[in-house]
Amino acid sequence: MGYTMNRLISGEGFDVVDARTRKALADHGFGVLTEIDVAATMKKKLDVDMPAYRILGACNPKMAYQAIGIEPRVGAMLPCNVIIRAVDGGVEVSAVDPVASMQAIDNSALHAVAGQVRDLLGQAIKAI
Amino acid sequence: MGYTMNRLISGEGFDVVDARTRKALADHGFGVLTEIDVAATMKKKLDVDMPAYRILGACNPKMAYQAIGIEPRVGAMLPCNVIIRAVDGGVEVSAVDPVASMQAIDNSALHAVAGQVRDLLGQAIKAI
Repeated sequence: MGYTMNRLISGEGFDVVDARTRKALADHGFGVLTEIDVAATMKKKLDVDMPAYRILGACNPKMAYQAIGIEPRVGAMLPCNVIIRAVDGGVEVSAVDPVASMQAIDNSALHAVAGQVRDLLGQAIKAI
Repeated sequence: MGYTMNRLISGEGFDVVDARTRKALADHGFGVLTEIDVAATMKKKLDVDMPAYRILGACNPKMAYQAIGIEPRVGAMLPCNVIIRAVDGGVEVSAVDPVASMQAIDNSALHAVAGQVRDLLGQAIKAI
């Protein structure tokens, strides 16, 4: 089973893909609450070089609030990450599949919400 | 199977527990890269009130770098979240169990690293 929904975009720069990803997320109800420049962090902390790699923490407030009501500790797996990476052939965007990441949580009501979030995130990835 | 490692701390305020949590994380090699004030976000976005709830995104750079080398898309499940919540009887701190959250990823080398991170996070939770 996969744990991400992926899209490879060729012929566009990293920052263009980043901007299109944020717009697609916003259009589908997701705010970006956190952001990690992984490559810059690794350079600073470990003095290593790696290709551009960014992690956006995306959150649909209504669904997150619903999920926390159903499963109070679910914040341990929020927000839903969307990673943007420079790869051979372009820039790849991958959104976590919350159904996969939350499969260790034994709560069927939560899984129903996670399925709705997966659908929305998948639509956002297609719309980039 | 649980998906978090938990500790209930009674008789201390939320901000004291928050500060002790950050110190314990730092002492065990984890930097806090992201931070979400969930209660404030929900108030702002949905105009709802909920008890204090914070999500810290904790990262051990060496282990994260190793994990990305083994499994490039693992950033979809990083950093490791530590949640701090006001609950009946005190303040609860819960760290995600990365072995549980990453069980959907079919990669045994990654699971070995996740196990090491779980041990370190567990030690940090005990040390709060």
